[in-house]
Amino acid sequence: MRLTGHMLIGAADVFGGGAELRAFNPATDATIDPPFGGGGANEVDRAARLAAEAFEIYSGSAPEARALFLERIAANLEAGAPEIVERCMLETGLPRPRLEGEVSWTAGQLRLFADVVRRGLWRTATLVSADPDRAGGARPDMRMHKVALGPVGVFGASNFPILYSVAGGDTASALAAGAPVVCRAHPSHPGTSELVGRAIRDAVAEAGLPEGVFSLLTGAGHELGEALVDHPEIKAIAFTGSEAGGMAIYRRGQQRAEPIPVFAEMASVNPHFLLPAAQAARADTFATRFVEQMVAGVGQMCLKPGIVLAIEGEGFDVLRATLVERLASAAAQTMLSPDIHGNYERGVGRTREAAGVTEIARGLRGEGRFDGEALLFEVDARAVIADLRVAEEVFGPMALLVRCSSFNEMREVARHLRGQLSIVVHLDDADLDLARALMPIFERKTGRVIANSFSNVVEICDAQIHGGPFPATTDPRFTSVGSSAIDRFLRPVAYQGVPDSLLPPALQDGNPLGLWRVRDGRPAQV
Amino acid sequence: MRLTGHMLIGAADVFGGGAELRAFNPATDATIDPPFGGGGANEVDRAARLAAEAFEIYSGSAPEARALFLERIAANLEAGAPEIVERCMLETGLPRPRLEGEVSWTAGQLRLFADVVRRGLWRTATLVSADPDRAGGARPDMRMHKVALGPVGVFGASNFPILYSVAGGDTASALAAGAPVVCRAHPSHPGTSELVGRAIRDAVAEAGLPEGVFSLLTGAGHELGEALVDHPEIKAIAFTGSEAGGMAIYRRGQQRAEPIPVFAEMASVNPHFLLPAAQAARADTFATRFVEQMVAGVGQMCLKPGIVLAIEGEGFDVLRATLVERLASAAAQTMLSPDIHGNYERGVGRTREAAGVTEIARGLRGEGRFDGEALLFEVDARAVIADLRVAEEVFGPMALLVRCSSFNEMREVARHLRGQLSIVVHLDDADLDLARALMPIFERKTGRVIANSFSNVVEICDAQIHGGPFPATTDPRFTSVGSSAIDRFLRPVAYQGVPDSLLPPALQDGNPLGLWRVRDGRPAQV
Repeated sequence: MRLTGHMLIGAADVFGGGAELRAFNPATDATIDPPFGGGGANEVDRAARLAAEAFEIYSGSAPEARALFLERIAANLEAGAPEIVERCMLETGLPRPRLEGEVSWTAGQLRLFADVVRRGLWRTATLVSADPDRAGGARPDMRMHKVALGPVGVFGASNFPILYSVAGGDTASALAAGAPVVCRAHPSHPGTSELVGRAIRDAVAEAGLPEGVFSLLTGAGHELGEALVDHPEIKAIAFTGSEAGGMAIYRRGQQRAEPIPVFAEMASVNPHFLLPAAQAARADTFATRFVEQMVAGVGQMCLKPGIVLAIEGEGFDVLRATLVERLASAAAQTMLSPDIHGNYERGVGRTREAAGVTEIARGLRGEGRFDGEALLFEVDARAVIADLRVAEEVFGPMALLVRCSSFNEMREVARHLRGQLSIVVHLDDADLDLARALMPIFERKTGRVIANSFSNVVEICDAQIHGGPFPATTDPRFTSVGSSAIDRFLRPVAYQGVPDSLLPPALQDGNPLGLWRVRDGRPAQV
Repeated sequence: MRLTGHMLIGAADVFGGGAELRAFNPATDATIDPPFGGGGANEVDRAARLAAEAFEIYSGSAPEARALFLERIAANLEAGAPEIVERCMLETGLPRPRLEGEVSWTAGQLRLFADVVRRGLWRTATLVSADPDRAGGARPDMRMHKVALGPVGVFGASNFPILYSVAGGDTASALAAGAPVVCRAHPSHPGTSELVGRAIRDAVAEAGLPEGVFSLLTGAGHELGEALVDHPEIKAIAFTGSEAGGMAIYRRGQQRAEPIPVFAEMASVNPHFLLPAAQAARADTFATRFVEQMVAGVGQMCLKPGIVLAIEGEGFDVLRATLVERLASAAAQTMLSPDIHGNYERGVGRTREAAGVTEIARGLRGEGRFDGEALLFEVDARAVIADLRVAEEVFGPMALLVRCSSFNEMREVARHLRGQLSIVVHLDDADLDLARALMPIFERKTGRVIANSFSNVVEICDAQIHGGPFPATTDPRFTSVGSSAIDRFLRPVAYQGVPDSLLPPALQDGNPLGLWRVRDGRPAQV
């Protein structure tokens, strides 16, 4: 593959005429070649029109064709992995094994969506038989299935430059739904984006699909993104990033003449609740694993644990001492970009000034200009209840130990939490009753409840939810990871009394796609 | 039942201290007793807090308890029908049989949702087994189901004062989801609303549910509705009404600190496409039935056909002449309220002044001050393509005959249409190929495609979609009628590695609710 600094607008390579953009190596503090021509409203218009044209064909494509296309993207990505990873290391400062892992998970996710397309449960095909003799009037034949909304605008994330970016879950689920994608490359990794974009574009050509199924646009500043959200042919937006960025895009999408769904995955502190018996039994291993998870990827993970809640009592001193000790020996590492590093420093500053907060440990100092140092603060539960801002997300290797004087106080903090992507509870058998009292609160506060686990991994499967109440996302009814991520881009259409030969295959009498359908109230594979 | 002019806030009767409101009889041009005390932000706050309290219990209630509660509401509604219908006739000018029908459909809808709750497909319970030996790392046990979003604010509609109002589909589907409801009564039928509200409140008490599960608020002006949309404990809004009203509420919901989903069902012209063979065979009966449907309920139906598209050729002159003849003998009837009558007159005026539009028939003049006279206009397809505003909804007994010179022109109009609740195609066997060319366009433009039917009925069943692309609704991913109306008020929650005894019953190993669940990729009743 060749890296040229061009945008990929359908089949065309376009060098933007706007402000030039160059990637930046946060580890060496240097810009990297080649220059990228910045795109703007004209390029958005061209890509969106191509996408709208492609939609008419692609949205009706056969499931097998669509599945093979997704598998082709996965294969192209794997074939390009050496180059992609090499370039991505330069642009992000992330280590090779982490990025190789991202390629592998991204390919796996594309193959999951190929499987999702083939199984077709997302169509929710539903049939209700006619009843000509019903008292009060005949009931017509009614059928319903789901189809794609229309072209989707995808904003690549900075923190997972491959897995949550150009070919990530947003793109994979939109393409699976039958929606063309116009992607805005994250300006902190334009080269990685171009290489991944070429892997997708090659697959479009190999699959013989209309060129507008995928376009990749690059540009610094807000103009390009705003034009993408505003374009009348774009029918949904997916975004992963900060709360400020997500809300700006969300509000812009709602102000359009025709408002569109904007799904933004944003802020989460992913609190860990350590229950008393578990604390008494293993405060030290808990603390060790907690610090490992908190500094992994320089704390730049959606699931970074930002809070640990523990109750004064057996094991508490061991917990606190071990957290302090482990944190103090954590190495500083290069953060993803100067912007992210600056935001981290400001977030740490805000936390330090908050009422009732004390710094209890600091990691090793870094050598690099954009290294993030690990930090641990302590705060009393009552201070959190009094002012929730203490517990807002700081993106980076920082966490807060919340000291609770009783289980009731821990539960009160739970009740006051904002929405989360995940809440983790650590328990032993003797903690089951306490955990049971917390579960209904957790269910209201988060998209995912996790027991006894330290992991930044978001399993990509049918039962995954990577979402949650605001500010975790802008719409808690959806997820950005897992099979149901496709639901964001689907709408239902009903057919009433329509002759069989005019129905889409998913709804025809003979069930030519072999789907599971709900037929007169019950699922059946007929 | 007693009609008192009170709001129902949980178990309390509250006479509002705001501006007094009286119902109005549009047939006799007179106000009706009793006076209603207007509610405002204080009453919203009280109802929303009660709803939030009730949510903690009601959202976890057993499906059978919830189903029995819905059935109780249906029974109470039927028991109160004589009084409700009597009062509603005074407040709306609608005839008795129509309103008796609404009670019966409303009760049927509540019973459908009882069945929906029992079957539990809405939970989309999904299980993925752990795989401790997976290459690349163990896969944890993952499970997912859907739960209610939180308290829902419901705005009753004016045009179906029972079926789309206090106990309508929005309330029924929210209660089925496990969400308490705070309803704002439509000010044009406050008495009907109070009587229906009492039927619901009695059922809350009889079922032993927390009082906050249902409240009914009444008030003139915008203050009450705005306070409802703004309240932090309200987590979703459902609205049926005009595009202007729906968009005002929608935008307000998005401007909250915590934005919430606002589903507004708004404007649709429900075009009828008459294909050539069908036109040649039965232009006269088509025209007769079209006019009947268009003037039914004084054109104040969501599915009123506002446009008929036909192609010049065999049968066209018969079609046009029959439309004119039938329309000319249509009687004027009382519209629902002075406001709606005024809007109708203005809409007719706008249409008359639009480029290329000619009035070709006018119905009989009415006696009453708020009678709506039927009107039929004709316009060339090219004029519609040039300026879509010609084809915007006018709520009332008015329609537009769009004269197409060819099938291609008809298809061009289809491509230019805004989003619709329904599109109806009339065809004979010889029209199948033409219909096939239109179907993909229809699918992009509407929530429901109907063949060869004249009916204002929205079947309430698993396969119904009463929704569609903007401006039919604010979010084409949802419906306000049918089993999937419940999806508007649900969010998914995942559980990772959580011990069986802490899981909600829907996800426990033993499947105590006997649900259909997706288990390792396939639906199964285990």
